[in-house]
Formats: sequence, C-alpha cells, structure tokens
Amino acid sequence: MKKILILNGPNINLIGMREPGIYGNDSYEDVCKQIARHAGERGLDVEFFQSNGEGELIDRLHACIGKADGVVFNAGAYTHTSYALRDAISAIGLPVIEVHMSNIHAREEFRHTSVIAPVCRGQIAGFGVMSYLLALDVLADLPQI
Amino acid sequence: MKKILILNGPNINLIGMREPGIYGNDSYEDVCKQIARHAGERGLDVEFFQSNGEGELIDRLHACIGKADGVVFNAGAYTHTSYALRDAISAIGLPVIEVHMSNIHAREEFRHTSVIAPVCRGQIAGFGVMSYLLALDVLADLPQI
Amino acid sequence: MKKILILNGPNINLIGMREPGIYGNDSYEDVCKQIARHAGERGLDVEFFQSNGEGELIDRLHACIGKADGVVFNAGAYTHTSYALRDAISAIGLPVIEVHMSNIHAREEFRHTSVIAPVCRGQIAGFGVMSYLLALDVLADLPQI
Amino acid sequence: MKKILILNGPNINLIGMREPGIYGNDSYEDVCKQIARHAGERGLDVEFFQSNGEGELIDRLHACIGKADGVVFNAGAYTHTSYALRDAISAIGLPVIEVHMSNIHAREEFRHTSVIAPVCRGQIAGFGVMSYLLALDVLADLPQI
Amino acid sequence: MKKILILNGPNINLIGMREPGIYGNDSYEDVCKQIARHAGERGLDVEFFQSNGEGELIDRLHACIGKADGVVFNAGAYTHTSYALRDAISAIGLPVIEVHMSNIHAREEFRHTSVIAPVCRGQIAGFGVMSYLLALDVLADLPQI
Amino acid sequence: MKKILILNGPNINLIGMREPGIYGNDSYEDVCKQIARHAGERGLDVEFFQSNGEGELIDRLHACIGKADGVVFNAGAYTHTSYALRDAISAIGLPVIEVHMSNIHAREEFRHTSVIAPVCRGQIAGFGVMSYLLALDVLADLPQI
Amino acid sequence: MKKILILNGPNINLIGMREPGIYGNDSYEDVCKQIARHAGERGLDVEFFQSNGEGELIDRLHACIGKADGVVFNAGAYTHTSYALRDAISAIGLPVIEVHMSNIHAREEFRHTSVIAPVCRGQIAGFGVMSYLLALDVLADLPQI
Amino acid sequence: MKKILILNGPNINLIGMREPGIYGNDSYEDVCKQIARHAGERGLDVEFFQSNGEGELIDRLHACIGKADGVVFNAGAYTHTSYALRDAISAIGLPVIEVHMSNIHAREEFRHTSVIAPVCRGQIAGFGVMSYLLALDVLADLPQI
Amino acid sequence: MKKILILNGPNINLIGMREPGIYGNDSYEDVCKQIARHAGERGLDVEFFQSNGEGELIDRLHACIGKADGVVFNAGAYTHTSYALRDAISAIGLPVIEVHMSNIHAREEFRHTSVIAPVCRGQIAGFGVMSYLLALDVLADLPQI
Amino acid sequence: MKKILILNGPNINLIGMREPGIYGNDSYEDVCKQIARHAGERGLDVEFFQSNGEGELIDRLHACIGKADGVVFNAGAYTHTSYALRDAISAIGLPVIEVHMSNIHAREEFRHTSVIAPVCRGQIAGFGVMSYLLALDVLADLPQI
Amino acid sequence: MKKILILNGPNINLIGMREPGIYGNDSYEDVCKQIARHAGERGLDVEFFQSNGEGELIDRLHACIGKADGVVFNAGAYTHTSYALRDAISAIGLPVIEVHMSNIHAREEFRHTSVIAPVCRGQIAGFGVMSYLLALDVLADLPQI
Amino acid sequence: MKKILILNGPNINLIGMREPGIYGNDSYEDVCKQIARHAGERGLDVEFFQSNGEGELIDRLHACIGKADGVVFNAGAYTHTSYALRDAISAIGLPVIEVHMSNIHAREEFRHTSVIAPVCRGQIAGFGVMSYLLALDVLADLPQI
Repeated sequence: MKKILILNGPNINLIGMREPGIYGNDSYEDVCKQIARHAGERGLDVEFFQSNGEGELIDRLHACIGKADGVVFNAGAYTHTSYALRDAISAIGLPVIEVHMSNIHAREEFRHTSVIAPVCRGQIAGFGVMSYLLALDVLADLPQI
Repeated sequence: MKKILILNGPNINLIGMREPGIYGNDSYEDVCKQIARHAGERGLDVEFFQSNGEGELIDRLHACIGKADGVVFNAGAYTHTSYALRDAISAIGLPVIEVHMSNIHAREEFRHTSVIAPVCRGQIAGFGVMSYLLALDVLADLPQI
Repeated sequence: MKKILILNGPNINLIGMREPGIYGNDSYEDVCKQIARHAGERGLDVEFFQSNGEGELIDRLHACIGKADGVVFNAGAYTHTSYALRDAISAIGLPVIEVHMSNIHAREEFRHTSVIAPVCRGQIAGFGVMSYLLALDVLADLPQI
Repeated sequence: MKKILILNGPNINLIGMREPGIYGNDSYEDVCKQIARHAGERGLDVEFFQSNGEGELIDRLHACIGKADGVVFNAGAYTHTSYALRDAISAIGLPVIEVHMSNIHAREEFRHTSVIAPVCRGQIAGFGVMSYLLALDVLADLPQI
Repeated sequence: MKKILILNGPNINLIGMREPGIYGNDSYEDVCKQIARHAGERGLDVEFFQSNGEGELIDRLHACIGKADGVVFNAGAYTHTSYALRDAISAIGLPVIEVHMSNIHAREEFRHTSVIAPVCRGQIAGFGVMSYLLALDVLADLPQI
Repeated sequence: MKKILILNGPNINLIGMREPGIYGNDSYEDVCKQIARHAGERGLDVEFFQSNGEGELIDRLHACIGKADGVVFNAGAYTHTSYALRDAISAIGLPVIEVHMSNIHAREEFRHTSVIAPVCRGQIAGFGVMSYLLALDVLADLPQI
Repeated sequence: MKKILILNGPNINLIGMREPGIYGNDSYEDVCKQIARHAGERGLDVEFFQSNGEGELIDRLHACIGKADGVVFNAGAYTHTSYALRDAISAIGLPVIEVHMSNIHAREEFRHTSVIAPVCRGQIAGFGVMSYLLALDVLADLPQI
Repeated sequence: MKKILILNGPNINLIGMREPGIYGNDSYEDVCKQIARHAGERGLDVEFFQSNGEGELIDRLHACIGKADGVVFNAGAYTHTSYALRDAISAIGLPVIEVHMSNIHAREEFRHTSVIAPVCRGQIAGFGVMSYLLALDVLADLPQI
Repeated sequence: MKKILILNGPNINLIGMREPGIYGNDSYEDVCKQIARHAGERGLDVEFFQSNGEGELIDRLHACIGKADGVVFNAGAYTHTSYALRDAISAIGLPVIEVHMSNIHAREEFRHTSVIAPVCRGQIAGFGVMSYLLALDVLADLPQI
Repeated sequence: MKKILILNGPNINLIGMREPGIYGNDSYEDVCKQIARHAGERGLDVEFFQSNGEGELIDRLHACIGKADGVVFNAGAYTHTSYALRDAISAIGLPVIEVHMSNIHAREEFRHTSVIAPVCRGQIAGFGVMSYLLALDVLADLPQI
Repeated sequence: MKKILILNGPNINLIGMREPGIYGNDSYEDVCKQIARHAGERGLDVEFFQSNGEGELIDRLHACIGKADGVVFNAGAYTHTSYALRDAISAIGLPVIEVHMSNIHAREEFRHTSVIAPVCRGQIAGFGVMSYLLALDVLADLPQI
Repeated sequence: MKKILILNGPNINLIGMREPGIYGNDSYEDVCKQIARHAGERGLDVEFFQSNGEGELIDRLHACIGKADGVVFNAGAYTHTSYALRDAISAIGLPVIEVHMSNIHAREEFRHTSVIAPVCRGQIAGFGVMSYLLALDVLADLPQI
C-alpha cells in the first residue's frame, strides 16, 4: 500500500475560518477528512502534516526518505519564494505534486510564479479540496517505486 | 448529460510522433480514445476539436455558447501569448479548465506564464494524458449550469 | 464616394451578448447598423469585415489596396501583440484609424500598449460605438487620395 | 446648454509657431476659434484655459466642480508623468476626454504612456485640431448630468 | 513655543468632498481644525499652507528657514515623482515628517514609492487625519533645535 | 480593556546592543518597558512576543484570533519578503499596524518595499521606540470590535 | 533529388509593391522565380507556400513530415512572437533555415529577437532575395537525411 | 550684442546656504555676479531668472522667442523628469546649454538621466559656477543667429 | 584558542545521500569530521550547527555574541533570499565567512546573487568540503579579537 | 579584383582544438584554407587577420580604408559588447558582413544580442565554415564600389 | 607649468574623415593643433595620446602618476562599458575631465550612460573640439596639486 | 611539479600604491613574493603575468594549453564584462580559480556579477593576498591531469 504525505504550508490551517470566497467554508479538519476518505477509496495510506514554518516543512520532507512513496504539497505562500523548499523536494527524490486550492495564476502578480514547480511532477491549481483529490489520483496511478 | 469540448491548440496533433521524452508515445488519436473512454465512465459527452489556428480556436470557443457545459483546453504555445483566446474564454462564460501534458513551469522561461489562466477555472499541468482526465473529473463534479 | 472598410478583430462579433458593463447591450449587428447609418449621412460607402483570425485580417487589409480609401480598425486583443498586422497596415499605405470601444488605457496593463498604433493615423478609444463614428468623421474629412 | 472647459497644458500655446510637421500651421488662437465654432454648431458653451503650470491646471480642474459639464483636456507632456493631474481628474467627478493633436503612440517611447488615461472617459489622439472637435461631439452626446 | 508648518500638496484641498471611502467625510477645513486643536493641546504653534503647485510648495518650504521648527508634509501625488521637493526638503535642514491619510502602500503600484522619504525623518501613512496628529506628537517630542 | 499584541520579528531582540546609530541605545527590554508604560497610560493591555522564526510569528498571529483586538507589528527583514506573513495578517481579520524603528525608505533599496503593507491598516516608520507608541495611540482610538 | 519547402509568412506576398527601400522592387513572383532558378542550378526541388495565417504556416510545416528534406523559412513578423511556430519547427525534425530579406537586427527593437531561432539551423538576414539563395546553398550541402 | 538668459530651476536659489560640500559657499547672488562679470568680459548681455515652478520656467523659455540668442539652463531636479521643459526647449528653437554645478553622473542613480539633454546643444556638469562660465563661452562662440 | 562556529543551513544535512554530481559522496557526518580534523591541525576549536529553519539559524548566530571568534556559514538556499540572516550577521559583529560547496555562480540564475555577501568578510564557492577548510584557514589567520 | 578582409576576433584561433560539438574539428588554418579556396573560385582576393585584442581589431578595420572592398567579420564574444567595434565599422564606410560559425541565437542569452549588427549589411550564423563562404558570395555579388 | 594629458580612445583618430554631421570636418591632427594652441594660450603643457586599445589607454593613464597634473579624456565608446578604465581613473588620483565632441545624451540609448563619469571631475559633451578647450580651461583653473 | 599561472588583469599592478583601504599596503611585487613563497611551500611552480589588455590576457590563457596545470585568475574589472575571457577560459580546458582581493559582492552593484564564474572551478573573494594563497591550495589538492 502506497504511503502518501499530505503536506500543507503556512496559513492552510486557517481555511474555512476566513476568506470563504477564495477557500470555501470547509475547515482544515473537514478538508483532511475528505482527503482521507478519497485516499481510502484509492487504496492509499495518507498522513497529514501542516506547519507555518519553512524549516519544519523541509524537515518533514526529509523525513519522507525511505518512508513515503509520494507527496501532495500545498506550500501556501512559500510557493513563491522558498528556494530552500525547492532544494528539499529536489533532494528527496520522490514524486511531489504541487497543489493549490485557489487558481494562483488568477490572483496577485506575485502568486503567478512558483519556485518549487520546476522540481515537482506537476501542478494542480484552482479546484478547492478537489485539487488534493486529483493529486492523489495521479500518485495512485504512478508505478510503485 | 453534460457536453464537454476537448479543445486542443497548435502542434498537439503531432504528439506521439515526436519528442516522446516530453509527451510520451501515444498518438493524438490514442490520447483522444483514452479521454473518450474516461468521459464515458464519468457520464460525459465529449467532442474533440484541434486546430493550429488561433482564429479557429476562438471560433470554436464561440460555438460553445449554448451548446456546451464546459471546456478542457490545451492551448499549446498560444497559452503564453494569446490575449485573443483569453478574451474568448472570458466572453463565452463557461467553465474552462486549462490543461498541459507537460509541466510547463519546469520548461523554458517563456512557458511559465499563462495569459489565459486568469480567466480559466484552474490549471492542471504535468501529467500527460491524465491531465485531461483529471480536468474531466473536475467538470463532472461541477453542478450543471 | 469614399470607400471605407470597417475591420473588426477577435471577439468583436460577441459584443452585446456578454460583458455589457464594458461593451454595452448592442449586438454586433446593431453596432454595424449604427455605423452604416452614420456613414450614409457622411456620404461614405462602408463595408464590414470581422474575423477572429489574424491571417484573415491581414488578407483583408491587403485586399484594400486599390479598392478602399481608408480603414477603421478595431483589432481587439491583437492590438497588443500583432506585429504582423502592424506590417500589413504599414504595407498597404492607406489611412487606418485605430478604434476601441472601451478605454484600453484604463483596463489591464497588457491592454495599455498598442503595437499597431505607430503605423495608424490616430487612436480613438473609450466611446463605445461612437468610437467608430468619430473615426468615420475623420476619414470623411481627409482629402480624397 | 452644456458648459465645457477646453483645457490645454504646457507648450500648447506655441502651436502653429513651430514644428508644423507635427502640429500644423494654425496658431493657438486659430485652433481655439475652430473649436469655438464647432462648439457653437453643437450647442455647447465652451471656455478656454491654457497654462504651462501643473498646479494651475489642477486649480482650474477643481474650479469646474459645479460649474462645468465636461472637460476636453490636452495635458501636453504632463500626460506622461502627472499623477497629481490624474488625482484632480478623479476627484472632480466630471467626464474628461483626453485629447492629443499628434498620435502620441507613434512618437518617442515616453509619450506612449498616459498616466491620466485610467481616469478619463476615453482618448482621442492624432487628428490635429479635429481631436478636440471629436471630443466635443462625445460630450455633446452624453446625457446631461 | 515650537512653530510647525502643516504643508499640504495637490488635491488635498478637496478631501471630504469626494472619495469618502478613501479620505473620509471631513472637509479640508475640518481636518485643519482638528490638527489645530491637537497642536494646541501639545503646545505647538501651527500654520497651514496648501497648494496644487510644485513650485509654490518648494517656495513655502524655503520660507521655513529660520522661521519654523518642523514640517508635517502631505505631498499628495508629488510624493511619487518630485525630486525637486526632495531637494527642497534636503536643503532646508529641518525635520520633515511625511504623512499620508491613506495607506499608500495598499493602493496603486505607483503610490508605493516615495521619492521624498529618504530625506524625511519618517513616514506615517494610513490613519486619516490622525496621521497628522501623530506627526505633531513626534515633532513635539523632538528636542528644540 | 483592549488587548494588543506587540509582535517583533527577526533581530529586534538585539536592539540596543549594536548599531546604535540606527536603533539607539535602548535594549529590547527597555523598549518593551516604554511601550508597556505608554500602553498603561492609554488603558491598553499589551502582550509582547518576539521571534526570529517566520513560522512562529505566523503561529502567534493565528493565536490572536478571538484573543486580541489589534497588533503592532515590526516584522524586521521579513517585511520585505514574507508573503506568508502577509497571508497570516490578512487571514486573522484584525487591525495590524506596521511599525519600523528606522525609516526603511531611507535605507537600502530592498528595504523600500513592504509586502505586508497592503494588508495592514497603516505604516509608521522612522521614529525609534516612538513608532510603537504612535501605533498604540492609533489602536486605542479605533472603535472596539 | 532533395525537396525543399520555401515557406513565407505574413506580408511577404506584398514585397515589391511597397517599401522598396527595405525590400527592393522585385515582386513576390519575381523573387520566387529567382529562387526557383537558383534551386534548379543546385539540383534542388523547391515548392513555395506563403500565408498570412499562423495556423496555416504550422499546418504547412507539419505537412513536410516525410515529404521534404528541408525548409527555408521567412516567418515575417511572426518571427518575433510565435512560440507555436517554434514548436512546429521543433516537432517536425527537419533542418529549417531562418531567412530575412532585411537585416532585422538593424531595424526596430522588437525585430531584434527571433523566438524561432533556437530551433532553426541558422539565420541569414539582410541580403534581400539572396538570403533565400544562400539558404538553399546550405541545404544543398547538407548530407541527405 | 548677444542676449543670453541664465535660467535656474528649483532650489538653485538656496546654493551657498546649505550643502557646501556639493555646491560650495557662494550664495546665489555671488554666483550671479561671477556669471555677469564673465559675460561682460565676453561681450554678452545676460539676464537672470530663477524659479521653483516648472510652469514659470516654461513661460520664461517661451518669452525668449525673438528676444534672446541663447540660454544657459540649470534645470535642477526637473532635469530628470520634466518632459514639459523638454518640449519647451524644443519649441523655442534657440541654442540651450544644459549646465549643472555638481557632477550629476556621480550622484544618486536618478540624477544620471537628463530628459532635457536630447534637445539641448550639450551638457556641462561638475565644475560649480564654472559650468555656467564655460556655457557662456560656448554661446559667445556660436555664430549670431 | 579561537572558537569557530560551523553553521550550515537548509538541506546541507542531506549531502552525500543525493546529487553526488554536485556535492560529492561524503555524508554530512563525513564532512564534519574532515572539518574538525582540519580545525584541529590549525588549532581551532570548532562547533557544528545545522538547521533547516531560518529562525533557528538566526538564533544560533545571536548566540555567538561573546562566545565565538568567527563563523563559517553555508546558508544553503537562504543565501539568495534571507535579509533576516543578513541583518543577523551584521548585528553580531563577528567575522563571518560565506562558503558554498558548489560554484553557485555556475548554477541557476537565482543562485548567482547572495544577499548575505555584503555583510560577510568574503566568499568561497565551488570546492566541496575544501571550501570550509579554506574558510578555517582564513579565520585562523585573522588577529584574535 | 575585389579585396576582402576576413577578420576574426577573440578565441577564433582555437577552433578545431576544442569544443568540436560547437565548432567542428577543422583547425583555424583548415578553415582559412577553405575560405581561401572558395574566394579563389569566386575571383576574390582575401586577406586574413585574427586577434584577441579589441583595439587591434579596430586598428585593422581602420586600415581597410582605401585598401579593401569589404569585410567578413566574426567578432567572437566582442559581438555582444563592443560598441567600439561598432563605431569602427560605422566609420570605415565599407560593407561588413557579420558571420558566426554557431547559431548564436540558440546559445546562452547573452549571445542573442549583437551590438555590431545595426551597422553591418547582414548576419549569417550557424553554418560553421560555410557561414564565411556565404558571406564571400554576398560580397562577390555586390557591385564594385 | 601644469602638464596635461589629452587622452583619446577608440575611433577618435578617424574624426574629420567620416561622419562630418556629427564630428565636423577637422581631422584628428587639426583638432590636436587647436587644442595645443589653446593650451599654449592658457600656459598648459599638453601631451597627446590616442589608442583604440582599452589596455593601452589604461597603461597610459597609469603612466600619468607623478608625471601629469590632469587628464582630458574622450574615451569614445569605451565610455559606456569600461569598468577597467573607471578603475584606472580612480586609481591614479588625478583630476580627469570627461569630454565628448557630440552630445552623447542626444544619441542612441546606449550612449546615455557613462560608466567612467562617477570617478571623473565632470563631463563636457556636445561642443565639438570646443569640449576639449573648455576642459583645459577647467584644469587651468584648478589649484596646482 | 605542477605548473600554475598567476594571471592578473587590469589595474592589479597598482595595488599597494593607492586605495589601501580596499587592497592593503603591499605592492604588486610584495604580493607576488608572498604568492611565490606559498607556492614553494606547496610544491607548485608558479609563473606571473599581468596585463591591462583584454586581448593579452586571452593570449596568455591560450598559451597555457599544454604548458600549465592550472590558473589562478584575478580578472579585475574585466570580471564583470568580458565574455571573450570567459570563452578563453572555457576553451583552454584547464582548472581556473577566480580570485578577488576585495569582496566584490559587498561593493558597487556592477561588481556583483562575474561573467567568467560559470566557467571557473570556483570563486574566492575578499581575503586580500590570501585569496591567491587559498586558490593555490585548491590547485595543489587537485589530482594531476
């Protein structure tokens, strides 16, 4: 059974509480439940980790080495600036899918650039919680490493 | 039954013939078949249109008004320059999902910017033919207009 | 009697159907009728051509050589990118008036630059269908070539 | 009877004396006479004001509040730099039409950008004195405030 | 008793008349009264000067030499372009506090840069009339020159 | 009684030890004491938090939800780069006042831009510890939420 | 016998009619004749295609697969903007020589960049019809594929 | 006897009072005297005008038409931004020599560009009051118009 | 005996495990051992600290005050973005040598700029573990503080 | 008999020794021989000069005045930076053909711009030694000066 | 008697032969004679050196140490690119006056920037040979070192 | 015994004479002696070459082919502009270590970029003469070619 890390970056823990126009009304816990249910249906073993700290996200990515088969990663605002996360993704050698609940390309200019994209498998942006579910579908379809 | 247009832009008709490292070995016809099969499983009625002409792609988008419920659009290289396609997407008022087989954010600099993204629902890039299938899943999930 | 081409580019055919806040409620046909009526009052013989294709717009400009005395041109989104249209305007040697229904300088950044402007006689932007009528007034006033 | 201010910025007072290739041979007084005649024919009550001072132009715009129904404004070279004039136009809440005798988009790079355009109704550029006359036609057509 | 000049630049005279969403409903006179009252409570002798003219603002700054102990300066839109005002502030050698009623850093891009900031003591932006009052508090606290 | 968080970012803990030319001789503890005294005089209940970690600052902002009435925030060098802090400020929905002891607009180019400014109420920069005191005055004046 | 496509983009059909200072007095037909004669002397079988449409040029390039041994391509103004043509050249896997009658590097700034150059064999610019003839010489010299 | 206008822009009236490191200790009056004495030796009839107002400087330039044979112009900080002064210089058709007491190319970045330079005869910068004297020498040497 | 901190930033802990082409095959522990041995030979007392967290690296730098005589710092990807680390280096007043195992100037564009360089003594890049050893040699040679 | 200078800039003397993937295996001497043979067949009198020094290349261009009928110039890396060579080409008034063995537009970004191109007749790039031969063909075809 | 080096950079040796519209008809020798005569009248001992080589110009500047009292330097096109010349000027510690015969600020964009200006005393541009003469006047006026 | 070239570019010959704040008091000869002594201790055979000429530096690099085992190169100001030196380093195929006595990253903006860095082994900057000694240590440690 494939092991997948659902990794969430800064401020994702607040979704559902604020800015429903962008992120909907579901809380972070609701979102995690939907992801877990979908993972179950796809035969994937998911673990969740959220942190507002860049270093802790890097630590968690490092901890995947030899422990996980793939990562679904919503890096929040670190998406646009963190070359350190980019290096971490590159270093661990696992398939990482970049996801965003909102369509980052339709928001402020600074959100149009993802510095982690060049080392991820692909990007899914704009579909709310479904962005995560689609990413799980992709990882489920990849041949076991 | 929802009607979905699978719209493909310049050079997509050549996939499978060349550059398998980026686009895989499946021909355009193979890709269409996989999309059609997946659409069938999701209860969607898909139609295909491919053109290398910007004007013809705009014409085809216009023709969707009152005829289609959504569009899966791989605009090829027009993604990065065509404000005319952007205006067309904006004008027809239908949900359009931007897809790319390759991870455009990991290729040449000029492919990192999508001028149509701000008027699309979201973007899926980097998963080969599966990018289209995921987009169909999104459209299948949207409430009927 | 002077012959004037009213040339319209991409997505102009959809005006009136959508985005009335920017383009008003008149359909493309309504707009053409108002232009034709005004032209009649000014003693001008107008012909209309609209296309979403860059190449077809260039072809139509070429066809003006020896056949028309002036052009009123709303190039839509090609205004901002088409050096090929610019070359066509430059090559045909006729007075071309650039018109826009909306005030392009008050919209998105990318609409502030017109690459065809340097080879047009002048620019009229922001007055809805009246932009075309004013352009006709200018052409009516020019000495016959 | 609508009251319209014809507002002219720096160096417009010198037209006709120099650079006839760009501005023609009519003097500033000639131009004013043609504008006044056209206004009379359109049933508009026009007043003229020209100044080379940015502050005086702002003062004059402010003085329009409750006194004028519209402004035809040729801001000269302040067009490209004066955010203070932009704020003044924005603050007075009247329809202001931006006009230029020359086609500013066909001249030096710095003349291609108008910082006042985003708060004007529209822009007319390139038709000599006729640019003013067309602007009057637009204001004559607007519903009385 | 310290003498302070309250210097206001272009369009500040119109506050309260228009754009209450940004500047509130108080008129320029109301604002001056509140400032005068606060100054009185702080034992400061304030004088007011407002002009839409860049040159007159420079003249007024020059006139402070040997006559004032400090300046509270809202340069309006000249904030973003006037190197001449910057030189004037630099030349008079008095403490000048830059104030803005609105949060200029949250508005249009061109308002994010202040060319006078490098020669002012500090900047207070975003608190309506209170921006002036806080600036007075700063000047009251400075040791007499 | 309003509760206010005094939030300080990276390296603020070192003030007073080094670079007195920019930050004065008061230690971080001295500064806190002056702020606390001023808050007491204004009837405000202040709490202090300083961290060099971006994630911990975000965590602390999140913890304000339902617990604080406002925040005085000196983000140090994160001011210029942290979109994650910007998102946190935006998400918590409380009035946040951006403060800087030095006049950031008069220092190195990279310090002229604040990426958090667009989501703060306003900015106070350049007055040493008094920047904090003025921010408290603003928060004291805001109507209780 | 090698088969070579002489592909001409927008406005090339008008050469000889206008702008003789840049393009000389020979008509498009004259130019084709000179090319054909030179090709005959070099033992090359040339076919000509000109279109003002980007899509049609892409279609024509695609049609070369398995039918032609090389392409001499004057993309006109599409040279500077068409990533779609670039992708087409890259996809067909044939030697394509980029030619320009004028020295594009000595004209307007926007003509200095060729987005198709990175996927062409080389570039010949500035020698009128001779640019085509030299390109034929290059293709004649290449080993048969 | 040639008539020369010595035109000085914003803040030049303060030289000698402040910033002696850059401008020396001579007052504006001292400088004028030295210029007048040198002009007398060269047989030139000089007139002086200084203003901090852009509009007044333009007015004064206009007043030179038919009255002066040349202008020595130190535009102060307007040098770097005033396209209106540029247009005025261009319009009056007289030889204008641009002078600066300091070496503007060795100071802040924004002082490196002169927008009036392209319409002046030449530029002399960095020699204090001698910059003016050298400019007079140039004008004395020009053939009478 | 001089005390030196060997400070390593994000992802340095993974060297030797991955990307041997860039970083060689030695593990982080191997590298530390080589550094320690070299330090011993040079009579230096070294301590090691590695963290993926920006805040923790700043904390560790602060802790050097009064405890260390110098720092050898490989800031990893924070090199290119962290003004907070720059401020920390500047604040502690110790000699800090910037090192990189790879030649950052020969890699991706974003790695060519070091925002911490202006406050470090110097930079050594491109020599693998030897970069650290050379930095130790420099610190060994500096006069004791 | 026309006299042609074959002028080669920095590092061209090393071709054939290194980087055969870009420049082929022929040595500089081999290349010169092929050029000389081709020149002979075309009835041209060629002379060769190679230097790594910018000044010497300028000297050699100057020496062509009155002595040569044209120049084939491969300026190597000076192509991208040497305005001094550009001025020399412009000053000597002879037809100069810019050649490059590699397709400079397909290599690093800095090689895409030629600062000498605007003063050369045309550019031939990407065909190895054949680039020189084609340039000779162009010069052979020019009418004798 | 002061010793002055008249240093001329690339292509200055050709003046008078070509481009009289920019540089006049006087040959380099004529120009030198005029300079020598003026120097004689001013009691200056001038020496001339011209080279097209950047290194030789640097060598010549170095040779001034202890031998010359000042330098009049026309660096030709090296003005815009040579940081090496800038360092040489800075290193020799003599007053260097930058001169240009043409008004470099009125020519191509690349000529508007002088990288040597920040280390020269001042700049004189646009007055033909008189630019040199004025520079001599400046050096004559400087107190003997 | 390894042979190493110590190559020094423009103005390095003047160190010790001027600007001791940046380069120290040792003369070029002193520096060479220290380098020679250190080389001797490391068993390296060093040769010195200094030139202010770009072409001569290229010539000297070329002369290393087959004669030297490595180069320590301080390119002075050519570091920031000379693509010709970059090509030379790339062409000779020897290990070249880039050194700078000052920390170029802490000086003017233009010194932050090294165009030769991408083809050097690594960079050592900021340690005075020790930068050379460390580079020798690196070359001593490399396996003999």
